Amino acid sequence: MKKFEEKTIHTNRLYEGKIINLKVDDVTLPNGKTSKRELIEHPGAVAIIAITENQKIIMVEQYRKALERSIIEIPAGKLEKGEKPEYTAMRELEEETGYTADHLELVQTFSTSPGFADEIIHVFFAKGLKKSTSEAVLDDDEFVELMEVPIAEAEEMMADNRIFDAKTAFAVLWAKQRLSIENENNS
Amino acid sequence: MKKFEEKTIHTNRLYEGKIINLKVDDVTLPNGKTSKRELIEHPGAVAIIAITENQKIIMVEQYRKALERSIIEIPAGKLEKGEKPEYTAMRELEEETGYTADHLELVQTFSTSPGFADEIIHVFFAKGLKKSTSEAVLDDDEFVELMEVPIAEAEEMMADNRIFDAKTAFAVLWAKQRLSIENENNS
Repeated sequence: MKKFEEKTIHTNRLYEGKIINLKVDDVTLPNGKTSKRELIEHPGAVAIIAITENQKIIMVEQYRKALERSIIEIPAGKLEKGEKPEYTAMRELEEETGYTADHLELVQTFSTSPGFADEIIHVFFAKGLKKSTSEAVLDDDEFVELMEVPIAEAEEMMADNRIFDAKTAFAVLWAKQRLSIENENNS
Repeated sequence: MKKFEEKTIHTNRLYEGKIINLKVDDVTLPNGKTSKRELIEHPGAVAIIAITENQKIIMVEQYRKALERSIIEIPAGKLEKGEKPEYTAMRELEEETGYTADHLELVQTFSTSPGFADEIIHVFFAKGLKKSTSEAVLDDDEFVELMEVPIAEAEEMMADNRIFDAKTAFAVLWAKQRLSIENENNS
């Protein structure tokens, strides 16, 4: 889909970082005029909707420096170069939560901030969840607290902004819909 | 919520742009070690869930340079300095779609990319929607195509990635749930 395409005249690369890069593009607009676009490059990420046998969503609380506060999110992690999203999701699920999944169902792929960033998140649903024998293994600079949250409580956490994250808000609505269908089929 | 707080030792401001800024913070982690955080500052934004009388969601298709493609999103716009989110939402709704609302209900506030950006989106539900007499008025560098999408079609657009945006995926699930409750109450 290329409707209203903005063609790049010149790219000015201003920062190459560990996780993100910054560039400013001069572009030609559909009306022939020119404009500037400030753009962030990000490797992309995965997030995992994991629901326990007793219908609780697995979440992690962590400090987010960008927001200067801690928030509650579904497990997630950045894509490593060349890594398949499914593989990253399996790894992050086990590392952050100590759970493994039999297999993953792709729920949705979406951009997080299409106005300025190319970050894309692949959201998976983890099927056949099992508590792994190994402990959660975190990165050196990663501190998270694991929690298992019933849907009703997750909705309260959305109302009082403890859940303060787009992918997690999406996941709670999706899980609610999914569980309601499953519970109906089983009744 | 300050659990696992990362304290700033030093801030290195690297770019001050028209829409975003970039800084790199040296931080002290909860274990006493230090790390770097690459952080984007963004003014924040609003997005509007607007549903027509015949239960279609109002959406706009636009080119997103960061993604090098056009995607379909609910109406949205950046906060101007000092502007109340409700006011921005009313303005953006009318400018982008030519519709006005009687009042707005705050649905959810969330971070879009908490790993690296402070962007927060306030998602509103527009109540008492009316087609305004005025035409849609767009910014100089803004080209969008308006569409009205039934829920079932929006779900198809999510499946084939024409909808490729976190806030819009959230909005479609939310609208589906809301309409299902309203239709039940009216039946």
